[in-house]
Parts: sequence; C-alpha cells; structure tokens
Amino acid sequence: MPAAVGACYRLNMSTPPDALPRVRPLNELPALAQRAAELLVTPQTRLPLTPTEAAHVVAQMGVVQFPPGTTLIREGDDQRTGHLLLLLEGEVQVDTGEVPISVLGVGNIIGEMSLIDGAPRSAQCTALGPVLAAGLSRRGLEQLIEEQPRAAAKLVTGLAQRLADRLRALGQQVQMLRQIGRT
Amino acid sequence: MPAAVGACYRLNMSTPPDALPRVRPLNELPALAQRAAELLVTPQTRLPLTPTEAAHVVAQMGVVQFPPGTTLIREGDDQRTGHLLLLLEGEVQVDTGEVPISVLGVGNIIGEMSLIDGAPRSAQCTALGPVLAAGLSRRGLEQLIEEQPRAAAKLVTGLAQRLADRLRALGQQVQMLRQIGRT
Repeated sequence: MPAAVGACYRLNMSTPPDALPRVRPLNELPALAQRAAELLVTPQTRLPLTPTEAAHVVAQMGVVQFPPGTTLIREGDDQRTGHLLLLLEGEVQVDTGEVPISVLGVGNIIGEMSLIDGAPRSAQCTALGPVLAAGLSRRGLEQLIEEQPRAAAKLVTGLAQRLADRLRALGQQVQMLRQIGRT
Repeated sequence: MPAAVGACYRLNMSTPPDALPRVRPLNELPALAQRAAELLVTPQTRLPLTPTEAAHVVAQMGVVQFPPGTTLIREGDDQRTGHLLLLLEGEVQVDTGEVPISVLGVGNIIGEMSLIDGAPRSAQCTALGPVLAAGLSRRGLEQLIEEQPRAAAKLVTGLAQRLADRLRALGQQVQMLRQIGRT
C-alpha cells in the first residue's frame, strides 16, 4: 500500500450505515490518479473511453482503503450503495448468488449496478487482503454528466454494456435451470 | 395509422437480413416527433430526460411501420440488431424466454439491450396489429453523444437503469429456480 494514501479514509464494518464516509479525492494523489486513469481504459474494463475522458472520470473519483477481511459491499445493503469501485490494489472475493464465487483483482470494476440504480446491493464483496479502490458515487456521476457529458455518456454506455452482458448470461442460466427442472 | 406516415419504410419479413432499411427521419413528421418526445418523458419509460433533451433524442430517431403479424425483433437475430424501438401506435407481443409472454403498448421501449451492445437479440417481438415505432440506432446514439452529450448521458443512464432492474429480477428468478431444484 503506498504511504501516500495512508491518510485516506478507511471504510470498515464499524462505519455507521447511515452515513457515507468522506472519501479523499483521487486527484489529490496524482500518481494513483494516473494509475486509475490507465486502468479505466484497459480492455478488461471494456469502457469506450479515451485517455482524456478517463482522466475526466478520475477527477470525480475518491480513493478508499479496505483492511483485509472487510466487507466492501454487503448483499441487500440499501445504505452504503450508489457507487462503483475500481480495484487499484489487492483482491476481492465476490459472491453474487448467480455464479460460483469469483475473485477479482486490480483493474476490475464492482458495484456498477448500484451506481446506476442506487438500489440495494445484489452481491457480497470481501477484501482478501488490503484493498485500495477508486470509487465513483452517484453524485460524482451526476457531476460528470454536468461537467464532461461526453465522457459521462461513454462511461455509462460501457457500464450498460457490462450489464447487458450479465443479463444475457443470466438469461441463458435461467433457460438452462428451467430445462433441468423439466427433466 | 396517420396518413402522414404512409410513405415511411415498411419493415417486413422479406427485408434482406443483410441490410438495414432506410428509415424516414422522425423530425420530417413534426406531429409524430412531438408525440414521441412526449412519450419518452412519461414515467413509464423511466428515462431521466427533460422535454428539451427528449427532443434531442427524437432528432436522431427514425419512424418505422410494421404490418400486423410482422416480427419486429427475432430472437438470435445478429443482423437487424443494434437499435431500440419506442412504440408510437399498436401493440407488440414479447417473448424473452425469461418471463411469461407479455404484451407491450404505446410508450413502451423494446430492444434497448441490442442498442447498447449490438449483440444478437434475446427476445422475439411480434406486431399484434399495425405498429408504428420510433427507432434509435447505434449510429443515432453515437451521433447524439457527439451533438448532445448531456441528453445522451441521461438517456443511456436511464436505459442502464432498466437493464439493472431486469438483472435484479432475473437474479431473483435464478435463486428461486435453484431453490426449487434443491427441494
């Protein structure tokens, strides 16, 4: 974990559920902001952003640290919702109830569904070690739409594509489960 | 069906699958364009657009007529894909394989998933009578992002919210089917 981020807010399970913590703006840590912008445009994220647009997105992000074992996202949580996380360091175990438990690492995005609709979380995410992430809140997204609408449009189009992929995969799973049910 | 739209392109099953037909711009029919803009901002669509932003979206739409019994969207179709339809007149029967067959009427949107990801259709949609629809293609969406990025960002955010809703519903369905499988 870089020393530079030692002062950023630590989210942990004792965080009061009724108040989102103040998160340190990512742009206060230029090297980390640069890294986040680079990760946003890797093929892995499938976001159709140019480097400049990625920098506009990063300008609305905050940095969050999670100690090992912390629940980043709790299934059914309707309080600490409405933001996505881009993993900058560490690994996260994800259990969506849809597919076998998976482990996500640096450059992966989690929580895009809650960013989009602000509804309760549908997955459980746990830090497997120290995790550092860049977070984008709904407020940050609204600000991005106001200030850099083209970057916002392309970001949300990319996130919608990710949701569409999951929807198609889940639709196939439903058909398969129904066929099993018939046999 | 208003006489004014008699000249617009008729999509039918004999349309060559390798070429999308030329669609008449919706703005050439001002009364219909106005109606489409009004329908885009009804609570039913759940799109967070202002009337002005809806007009920007409509400016990128074309009008399409479907005779009774026509397949508007064919499951697995990977050619006539990449556009959504806003129903302006008539009713459409939708079979997604996910839920019981449903009937959608005026003001409903279909095909948003294919607009977003351009992948093959995951539903089958059939015109129950004469259907008139406003279509937005991927090219239209790209044009909107260029010309009116704020309207585009809000449109795509709304479409992503619709996908997130479906994803949550389908996730619950998978859990239910799995529980049934265990009993």
